[in-house]
Amino acid sequence: MAFFEPAMTDRLNAFFQHDADLAWEATEPGVKRKIMAYGEDLMVVRVVFAAGAVGKAHQHPHRQASYVESGIFDVTIDGRTSRLHAGDTFFVPSGLVHGVVAVEAGQLIDSFTPMRKEFL
Amino acid sequence: MAFFEPAMTDRLNAFFQHDADLAWEATEPGVKRKIMAYGEDLMVVRVVFAAGAVGKAHQHPHRQASYVESGIFDVTIDGRTSRLHAGDTFFVPSGLVHGVVAVEAGQLIDSFTPMRKEFL
Repeated sequence: MAFFEPAMTDRLNAFFQHDADLAWEATEPGVKRKIMAYGEDLMVVRVVFAAGAVGKAHQHPHRQASYVESGIFDVTIDGRTSRLHAGDTFFVPSGLVHGVVAVEAGQLIDSFTPMRKEFL
Repeated sequence: MAFFEPAMTDRLNAFFQHDADLAWEATEPGVKRKIMAYGEDLMVVRVVFAAGAVGKAHQHPHRQASYVESGIFDVTIDGRTSRLHAGDTFFVPSGLVHGVVAVEAGQLIDSFTPMRKEFL
């Protein structure tokens, strides 16, 4: 784990993450994320979207499960699209192309296994 | 996976889970949960607590990361306690004893790796 930044390495396997102590990072236009809890094989990331913002289609070997905390999202996975509202979830098996469009502003709670090391 | 109930087996690796289609199950007093997205090595579960409800101390080999969607929780992991509010998270390494007390009514979004087969 020597390639992690010290601050991030210190947080690996940490028990508690307080929102107020952690910074947002901009990703795509109208999208920002905050890395929350993580261990080697599990990571939780908050992702906030402005209305109309796009998480453009991409793929990764990690499995992903995402919870819609707020907003409305059109989610496309492997060519299938569904409109999701607060309380809904989606699941992305390894390697499948997926993307989202925020129909209304909102927040996703993304979980990944293994952790997304490239986010650190 | 032959030991799963058919309805649950059908949902393994399913892309989309709509809240309105899924049922709550009572667990402990004042606590209910709803199984959301899951694959073999990742599962997301919504857990709603009434004010004062307790998720009593327990342990499991699965790694767990939980996001506080709403409410206030006193979370104890391996003898250390922290008070968490909406937007905070906690992480439970494999096998560590953990439990929560809902200081105010609220909801946790629990992620597990691997999935909690015993929940199905």
